[in-house]
Amino acid sequence: MNKTDIISTRNMKRDFIEDILKRTKKMEPIAEAKKQVDILEGKTLATLFFEPSTRTKLSFMAAMNLLGGTIIGFDDPRTSSVKKGETLADTIRVVEGYANAIVMRHPNEGAAALAAKFSKVPIINGGDGSNQHPTQALLDLYTIIKEKGTLDGLEVTLAGDLKYGRTVHSLAYALSKFDASLVFSSPPSLRMPEWIVADIKAAGTPVKEINNIEVQSDVLYLTRIQKERFPDIEEYQKVASAYVLDGDAMEKLGKETMIMHPLPRVNEISAEVDKDKRAKYFIQSFYGVPTRMALLAMVMTDR
Amino acid sequence: MNKTDIISTRNMKRDFIEDILKRTKKMEPIAEAKKQVDILEGKTLATLFFEPSTRTKLSFMAAMNLLGGTIIGFDDPRTSSVKKGETLADTIRVVEGYANAIVMRHPNEGAAALAAKFSKVPIINGGDGSNQHPTQALLDLYTIIKEKGTLDGLEVTLAGDLKYGRTVHSLAYALSKFDASLVFSSPPSLRMPEWIVADIKAAGTPVKEINNIEVQSDVLYLTRIQKERFPDIEEYQKVASAYVLDGDAMEKLGKETMIMHPLPRVNEISAEVDKDKRAKYFIQSFYGVPTRMALLAMVMTDR
Amino acid sequence: MNKTDIISTRNMKRDFIEDILKRTKKMEPIAEAKKQVDILEGKTLATLFFEPSTRTKLSFMAAMNLLGGTIIGFDDPRTSSVKKGETLADTIRVVEGYANAIVMRHPNEGAAALAAKFSKVPIINGGDGSNQHPTQALLDLYTIIKEKGTLDGLEVTLAGDLKYGRTVHSLAYALSKFDASLVFSSPPSLRMPEWIVADIKAAGTPVKEINNIEVQSDVLYLTRIQKERFPDIEEYQKVASAYVLDGDAMEKLGKETMIMHPLPRVNEISAEVDKDKRAKYFIQSFYGVPTRMALLAMVMTDR
Repeated sequence: MNKTDIISTRNMKRDFIEDILKRTKKMEPIAEAKKQVDILEGKTLATLFFEPSTRTKLSFMAAMNLLGGTIIGFDDPRTSSVKKGETLADTIRVVEGYANAIVMRHPNEGAAALAAKFSKVPIINGGDGSNQHPTQALLDLYTIIKEKGTLDGLEVTLAGDLKYGRTVHSLAYALSKFDASLVFSSPPSLRMPEWIVADIKAAGTPVKEINNIEVQSDVLYLTRIQKERFPDIEEYQKVASAYVLDGDAMEKLGKETMIMHPLPRVNEISAEVDKDKRAKYFIQSFYGVPTRMALLAMVMTDR
Repeated sequence: MNKTDIISTRNMKRDFIEDILKRTKKMEPIAEAKKQVDILEGKTLATLFFEPSTRTKLSFMAAMNLLGGTIIGFDDPRTSSVKKGETLADTIRVVEGYANAIVMRHPNEGAAALAAKFSKVPIINGGDGSNQHPTQALLDLYTIIKEKGTLDGLEVTLAGDLKYGRTVHSLAYALSKFDASLVFSSPPSLRMPEWIVADIKAAGTPVKEINNIEVQSDVLYLTRIQKERFPDIEEYQKVASAYVLDGDAMEKLGKETMIMHPLPRVNEISAEVDKDKRAKYFIQSFYGVPTRMALLAMVMTDR
Repeated sequence: MNKTDIISTRNMKRDFIEDILKRTKKMEPIAEAKKQVDILEGKTLATLFFEPSTRTKLSFMAAMNLLGGTIIGFDDPRTSSVKKGETLADTIRVVEGYANAIVMRHPNEGAAALAAKFSKVPIINGGDGSNQHPTQALLDLYTIIKEKGTLDGLEVTLAGDLKYGRTVHSLAYALSKFDASLVFSSPPSLRMPEWIVADIKAAGTPVKEINNIEVQSDVLYLTRIQKERFPDIEEYQKVASAYVLDGDAMEKLGKETMIMHPLPRVNEISAEVDKDKRAKYFIQSFYGVPTRMALLAMVMTDR
């Protein structure tokens, strides 16, 4: 089967990533102008969201619309036959007959990989449990390049919930393909999984672990720490406060440190930060459109 | 920011309303023929429904389709990142990057105004709590003009739940821009809010308050009285029955009084009324399409 | 009103069915190539799903997209005004103003017929309670013809829950228009309703009733037996196991017996069966696209 699935950044080659970033650059003016083209005219994307999503789902829809294609899908498994107990493999074998590609989000780790095994059409992983969110990592890379001009030679701090955060897993692997160095910053109970740290180090990427966000890195990538992860609320409050970026924390942050966040944020970045020129999370969110346009066009055409 | 938001009828000028009604007239044959045009080809509308909707959502979708545009959105906040605690401001700042305009319905009064403040693209209020539903008021005006030929010189009775009903709030303000006189008919506990009555009177519009629907007005605009609004069921039954339009009530209604309702109705208009020539609520519902086509085309093009 | 509704196979004429099958044949290459045409360009389909659906909804959406049309709709009555207590008749009278045809699924038997009475635009029944699912029956017939070359002279066994299963009701009626003979196989408490058996026999179709799936028929059409239908779990386990198609059961099945299932399946067909050349349920599911393309094109154009 000669198809391209986008499942994980773990095994992506640097060349492949660079190709996507180049394609994204071509898509950016179209996304910026919000002006439809006909690259995927007549093609259909299925969006299967077994879990809540706003920006991933809407940006894929917007990307597909801009490329001239059409969309089918569901965004609530309660309204689909999953409710009746259908297996993912069966759902995929049915939906592949209806669409040219499938984007899916699923609560189970490995769900997208399983789907790719069963599907004749390309599968794009829109998030599988705590495992991977590769299209997010690609738009993250694109954002860094846009702002910093390169990925090589940068120090990137990933902070917050590194244990369950699929975006930081995908981004860590993606950055390990470049000459970046990584800082993992988290409460002890939410450290980056050992096997990921081992993989990253094995790739030759320098890794440092800290537990605060007073960094001078080129990039500070914050993620949300969820209350539910902690057995008692006191413990949560103690550690979470160290990962809140407010006016005070901004004072201690590097003057050229760009701030990223996959969004949604709850209270880990104060509203006062939004106007700081280092805050890049909204433009980052916008880059989801050209990145996903590039991915959709790549997997659904021979171009 | 040179954009047109549709947030409330309160501050709409008569000229602006008349312009929309004129544009609606041009859209009506397209909506009637259900024949697609290319006015918004390549444009994307985001429909963000934080609350249930059938006719507002579907008529906006139909309008956008007829104009040749595409749609992204969600209709259940449980399937979006709102569930994760994202603020409305953040959701808007993300979605504005994906679409040329945003239609939203939200349970909070003032939500659309807040969104308009944060959004670079036009915001259309599809209902914000008990506050406003301006696109409904515009289609209501259009319906009255179609049936009565004019808005000036008419007496319009707004009846039912005038306290929480956003449609009657928007319609009262909209009519106050014309030479209409208003009758507010409601149970004592559901009277039109004092500040709205004051605003309407300040605009020079004659206002009368009554508590029955045996009127001879040019228009009787009925709305639903919700059981939940009453502390005890007996109290509810006593007052609600006075606002039910059945065969008997029709006998006492003016022979030329047109009957409107924003729908959905539950039991406040009997099925036997549907065939009466005075009943106009289904054609009223249809006029939602050309009205929303006019609004969408206006806010998303320079025309 | 000169419109074609697709409500039930009960009163469909053989000519009408054959016409649809012929149209389906023309649509198949388009569905197979997933290449958009312009047959329904500019037309809008409303999809009103008052009950969960994956393949019916998604295949109708895919079909409409392939025909160049657009879609509006809801797939969760909790997000529509049904939640506010609107009657189906009212919902339909509103939505008919927004679309060129309506596909609906509803938990109540007869809902689609009621809708057709109120609607000026064609209604397609996507399943009404335990009553009918005519578009499924049509794609089932198409699948049989594709695999067996004909419908006449075949023996078809319908097995599982014949009491509540709307797909088998529709298929039984549809097959009774052809020279097929039918075998009904079910636990005693889930037998095909007497009035349907009577109708089928009255049409001259030979009918046999059995209670196992060790058949030599040309077709074995399996359906799911739902646990909830049984007062006690022991009773369920006793009968349900006789309707599970696994490796052992496959040994006893006719060597040329094609296996069909409307899907979703839960455990009534083992995964090991999937690779058997007699298993046809995934291609059957795919034929939903050309069948629904044929139906949509037929009801929305004069062709």
